[in-house]
Amino acid sequence: MESNTNVLPRPLRGIIPPLVTPLLKRDTLDAAGLERLIEHVLAGGVHGLFILGTTGEAPSLSYRLRYELIERICGQVKGRVPVLVGITDTSFVESVNIARKAQEAGAQAVVLAPPYYFPAGQSELLEYLKHLTLELPLPVFLYNMPSYTKLVFELETIRAAADFPGIAGIKDSSGNMIYYHRLQSLLKDHPDFSLLVGREELLAEVVLFGGHGGVCGGANLIPELYVELYNAACSKDLSKVDVLHQKVMRLSNAIYNVGQYESSFLKGLKCALSCIGICSDFMAEPFHRFRRAEHDRIKQYVKELGITPER
Amino acid sequence: MESNTNVLPRPLRGIIPPLVTPLLKRDTLDAAGLERLIEHVLAGGVHGLFILGTTGEAPSLSYRLRYELIERICGQVKGRVPVLVGITDTSFVESVNIARKAQEAGAQAVVLAPPYYFPAGQSELLEYLKHLTLELPLPVFLYNMPSYTKLVFELETIRAAADFPGIAGIKDSSGNMIYYHRLQSLLKDHPDFSLLVGREELLAEVVLFGGHGGVCGGANLIPELYVELYNAACSKDLSKVDVLHQKVMRLSNAIYNVGQYESSFLKGLKCALSCIGICSDFMAEPFHRFRRAEHDRIKQYVKELGITPER
Amino acid sequence: MESNTNVLPRPLRGIIPPLVTPLLKRDTLDAAGLERLIEHVLAGGVHGLFILGTTGEAPSLSYRLRYELIERICGQVKGRVPVLVGITDTSFVESVNIARKAQEAGAQAVVLAPPYYFPAGQSELLEYLKHLTLELPLPVFLYNMPSYTKLVFELETIRAAADFPGIAGIKDSSGNMIYYHRLQSLLKDHPDFSLLVGREELLAEVVLFGGHGGVCGGANLIPELYVELYNAACSKDLSKVDVLHQKVMRLSNAIYNVGQYESSFLKGLKCALSCIGICSDFMAEPFHRFRRAEHDRIKQYVKELGITPER
Amino acid sequence: MESNTNVLPRPLRGIIPPLVTPLLKRDTLDAAGLERLIEHVLAGGVHGLFILGTTGEAPSLSYRLRYELIERICGQVKGRVPVLVGITDTSFVESVNIARKAQEAGAQAVVLAPPYYFPAGQSELLEYLKHLTLELPLPVFLYNMPSYTKLVFELETIRAAADFPGIAGIKDSSGNMIYYHRLQSLLKDHPDFSLLVGREELLAEVVLFGGHGGVCGGANLIPELYVELYNAACSKDLSKVDVLHQKVMRLSNAIYNVGQYESSFLKGLKCALSCIGICSDFMAEPFHRFRRAEHDRIKQYVKELGITPER
Repeated sequence: MESNTNVLPRPLRGIIPPLVTPLLKRDTLDAAGLERLIEHVLAGGVHGLFILGTTGEAPSLSYRLRYELIERICGQVKGRVPVLVGITDTSFVESVNIARKAQEAGAQAVVLAPPYYFPAGQSELLEYLKHLTLELPLPVFLYNMPSYTKLVFELETIRAAADFPGIAGIKDSSGNMIYYHRLQSLLKDHPDFSLLVGREELLAEVVLFGGHGGVCGGANLIPELYVELYNAACSKDLSKVDVLHQKVMRLSNAIYNVGQYESSFLKGLKCALSCIGICSDFMAEPFHRFRRAEHDRIKQYVKELGITPER
Repeated sequence: MESNTNVLPRPLRGIIPPLVTPLLKRDTLDAAGLERLIEHVLAGGVHGLFILGTTGEAPSLSYRLRYELIERICGQVKGRVPVLVGITDTSFVESVNIARKAQEAGAQAVVLAPPYYFPAGQSELLEYLKHLTLELPLPVFLYNMPSYTKLVFELETIRAAADFPGIAGIKDSSGNMIYYHRLQSLLKDHPDFSLLVGREELLAEVVLFGGHGGVCGGANLIPELYVELYNAACSKDLSKVDVLHQKVMRLSNAIYNVGQYESSFLKGLKCALSCIGICSDFMAEPFHRFRRAEHDRIKQYVKELGITPER
Repeated sequence: MESNTNVLPRPLRGIIPPLVTPLLKRDTLDAAGLERLIEHVLAGGVHGLFILGTTGEAPSLSYRLRYELIERICGQVKGRVPVLVGITDTSFVESVNIARKAQEAGAQAVVLAPPYYFPAGQSELLEYLKHLTLELPLPVFLYNMPSYTKLVFELETIRAAADFPGIAGIKDSSGNMIYYHRLQSLLKDHPDFSLLVGREELLAEVVLFGGHGGVCGGANLIPELYVELYNAACSKDLSKVDVLHQKVMRLSNAIYNVGQYESSFLKGLKCALSCIGICSDFMAEPFHRFRRAEHDRIKQYVKELGITPER
Repeated sequence: MESNTNVLPRPLRGIIPPLVTPLLKRDTLDAAGLERLIEHVLAGGVHGLFILGTTGEAPSLSYRLRYELIERICGQVKGRVPVLVGITDTSFVESVNIARKAQEAGAQAVVLAPPYYFPAGQSELLEYLKHLTLELPLPVFLYNMPSYTKLVFELETIRAAADFPGIAGIKDSSGNMIYYHRLQSLLKDHPDFSLLVGREELLAEVVLFGGHGGVCGGANLIPELYVELYNAACSKDLSKVDVLHQKVMRLSNAIYNVGQYESSFLKGLKCALSCIGICSDFMAEPFHRFRRAEHDRIKQYVKELGITPER
C-alpha cells in the first residue's frame, strides 16, 4: 500500500543508486531502457532510488523531460522503495516547482545541492535553505558536491540546518573523509539525520564507522555488489568487506577511468549499461557517448569483470 | 523602423549595459522600475542592452519570469538599440527555448556562457557549440566567465568557433587582459567579430587597443560616464580617458566593495539604483538586498560620487 | 647496536610522529624541549620519527638550524627507532645536501615532497625523481601534500617511481581516501612499499584496509593514543578502533580548530605541547604562536581532554 | 662613480629584465654566457636588472650558486644600472642572509614574494613583512606572484606595508589588471612607490595609465623592443605603442607557447637565447631544456621574428 512507503524511514539506510537517465535523443527518454533499469536495480535489492542527480545528468535535461521522468519512475516503482528526486537548481522557484511535481507523483523526498552559479557565502546559503525548506512539500536531503557546485556546505551550516524541519540527511559527494568524520561527530545527537556517502569507493569505511549507506553510481550496473558490501559492513564482517571493497575498486578503476575528461565516470557507466543491454548510452550535451575506441575498452572491461544483467 | 534594427551591426560596438532585473518579490518583476531603468540607460546614450546575464541574475530567475522580462524589454525598447538576450543554461534544450522566445519578441542577438554544472572538456565544449549554433535563430555572442562557470573558452576553442555561422563576437568577463590580448591577435583576420569586455575597470585599455566596447555593469547607474569613456578611447583622447577611467575606478572601489561576499558587486549596484529612485533593490535568492548598515554606506557613496538620475 | 637499526624495516609500519621543531627564537632550537619531546614520544611506543616535515616547519627554518636538528635528534635517538628526515626543497642540490647530512648523522631514510615553487608537469616530476634518487644515500619516502606543494604525485607517477631503487613508500597527506584506495590497488604487487597516511583522522580506516601506519601530528602530544589505535586496527578490533578513533576526532576538533587560518593545526599543536610542559610554543615566521585568547582556549581543551605528559 | 648608483631612483622607472640564470650543469654557472647576457641587455638600454627571480629559476638553485651569481653580476654591472636581487624564501633567516650578501656585493635593492610553502593569512603576512623589513639592509620591492606562491598580497596588506620604511615598490606578476588599477588608486598618495608590471603583455597599458615600468622576461632576448615600448608609452605615442605592443604579443605567442606545461615560458626563453648564441639553455630541475622537436620550433620562430644579438 502506497501510504506506508510515503513515510520515509528515518534515518534512511542502505544503497540508493543515483539513477542514470536513459535517453534516445537530446529530449527523448529511452522509456523501455528506463523500465529495464528500474527493475534491474530493484531486483538487486536496493533500498531506494535517487533520480535527477549528477549521475542522472539532471542539469542537462529540459524541465519537460525531468517532469516526465519523475512521473514515469514513481509510476513504475509504486512505493516498492522510496524515491528521492533531485531539485537542485540555480532558481529557487524552479526547485520548488520540481519538488511539488515530485510530491504529486508520489516521491518520498527531495535532494538539494547548493545553487551553483552565484558564489554565495555560507550565511547566504543558510538563509536560502531556511526560506526554501519552508516551501518544500517533502523532506530534503542536502547534497554536498563542491567540485561541481563550487559551493561547499560548511560544517557549521549543516549543524544549523539540521534543526530546520524537513531536513532528513546529507549525501556527501565531496570525497573528503575528514569532512565526513567531522560531520558525523557534529551530528551525533541527531540520530534521525541520514549520513549517506556519494562516492562508492568510500562506502565500506563510511558504513563501518556508523554511516547509514551510500548513493553509489555503480549500483546502476551491479546493484547487488553494493547491497552485499553494505550488509557486510553493517554486520562488521571485515573479511567480506575487504573482498567486496576490492571488487568495487576494480570496477571503479576500470569503468570510470576511460577517456580523458572528468566525464569519464558518467560516460563509462552509461556505456557499460548499454553493453549489458539495459539501456541506451546516449548522453545529453555538453557530453556525448563514448566513441568506438573507448566503447570497445568498456566492453572488454565489462567482460573481464563478469558484469551481466542476470548475475 | 524595426526591420533596420534587426540587422545587428557587425561588429557590434559601444556600451551595452548588462541590465539588472528589477524585482518586487521572488517571482515578480518591478515593472515600473524596469521601465524607468530602460529609459534611464537609453537616455545615457548606450548602444545596446544585454539582458538576462550575470548582472541580471538570470540563473536565479524562473523561466516564466525570464520570458516575461524578454517580452517587456523588447516591447519597450522597440528597436531603438539592439537587445541581446542571455541564453546560458545547463540544458541545451532550455537555451534553445529562450533563444526562440528572444527572436519572437524581437531581440537582435543572444549571449551564451558555457553550461556551468558539468566540467566539459574543450573538445566537448566545441562540439556543444557546433550543435547549439545550428539551432539558434539569432546571432550569438560567446560569454567568457570562468569564475562563475568554472569553464573557460580556451583560445583555440574560440578560434574554431569564430568560423561557425552565427557567432558574432565575445564578451570576455575573465578580467584577464593577457587572455584578451591573445584573443585579439588570434582574431585579427575576423574584423566582424566583436570583442567586448565585461569588466568596466578594463574598458579604457580594451578600447584604446582596438576592442569594440564594453558590457559595463555601472552603465545601469551612470550610463553616460561609460559612453563618454568609450568615445574618448575611440578618439584616442588620452587625458580625457584618464580622467574618466579614474571616475570608473572610484565608482568600482566604492559601490562594488561593500559587504564581505562576491555578491558585493550585484548588491551594491542594485542598492545604488534604489538610492537614486530607479528601481527596487530586491534580489533573487541565494542573495538578499543589503541590510541597513551596508545600505547606508552605499547611500553615502552615491552622494559622494554625485550620482543622480538626471545628471 | 646501531648497525641493526640502519636496516630500515620494509615495509615500515606503525606510528611515525612528524616531530614539531621546538624553538626558543627565530633561529635557536629549544634544545631541552626537543630532548623532552623525543623521550615523550618514544615512551609512548612510536615506531619511528619523521623530522623536518610540514609539522616540523622545515621550510621556515634556516639550513644551519635544520642541520643542527638532524644531528641532535639522531644523536639522542641512537637507533632506538628509525629516523626519517625531510629533504623537500625547491633546489635539487639542497635536497641532496640535507640527505647526505642525514646519512652522516645516522638517519635511516629521507622524505621528499615535490619541489613546490615551479609547477612541474608529471613527466618532469618523474624525471626529477629519477635523477634525484640516483644521488640519495638513503631510502626515500614520497610525500604527497598537494595543498601545500600545489603539485600532486599522480597515480601513474607513483607506479613508475615505485620501481626506482631506493623508493621505500609514500606518506599521503592529501586527505583523499579515493586517491589512497587507488594507490593501494595500484601497488598491491609491491608488498615492501609502505603506505603511510599523513592525516590522523584517517588512520583507522587506512590500517583497517591494509595500510602500514600513520604520520600523525597528534602523536607529538599523546603518542600512545595513536599507537593503541594502530594496534587495534591491525588486530581488527572494531569496537576498540571506534572508541579510539572518536578520541582522535575529539582532539582534532578541539586542538586543531582554534584560530582562523590554516596554520591552526600547527599553532594548536605547539601550544598544547607547551601547556603540558614539553616544549616552547615559539613558531618560525610566517607564523607566530597563539596569543592570549587562543592560548587559553587550547589550555582549556588540554584539560578537558585529560592530556598530561605522564599519562 | 659607484656611490651615485647606490642611491636607488625613487620611484624606480623603466625596463628591468628578470635575468635568466645561464647554467652549464645543475650547479655550475655558464659564466661566459652570463657575461654576454649582461652586456646584451645593457646594450639594449635597460634601466636595471632583477636577478634571482622566477625567470632566474632562483628557487631551483643552490644557495652557493645564488651567492656566486650575485657577486658575478654586481661585479660586472659595476653600478651602470641598479641591480635588484630576489630574496624570496620560505625561511626568514635565509632571506636575510641573501639580502646581506646582496648589499655586500653592491646591489641596490631586493625583491620579495611571500613565503610560498605555508598558507599564511594576510595579517600573518603583514607581520612577517614588518619583522623582515627591519632586518633588511636594502630597499625592498614586493613581488606579487600568486600563481606560484599561492599567496596574494591583498590590497589592504600593500596599503599598510607601503608605509614601512624601506618598501620601494611592487612588481605585480598577477596578470590581473583590475588588481593593478585598484593598487594604483590606493597608492596615489605614495608617489615614490614604484608600480612595475611583471607580465610584458601588459607593459603598454600599465605605462600608459601611469605605471613606472616593467620586469619583462622578453627583455633578456630583445631588450630594445621593451625599452622602445616603454618610451613610446611614456610619451603617449599611441600609434607607436600599438606597433610595438603587437611585436611583444607576437614574441609571446610564439616563444612562450611551445610545449605543454607552464614551464613553456622559461624553456622557450632560454632556448631562444641559446639559438642566438647568448648563453646555454640548460635548466635547473625540476625542468629540463627543450628537446629536439621543441628546440626546432623555437629556432624557426627566432628566425621568423628576426631576433639577432646585434640588431
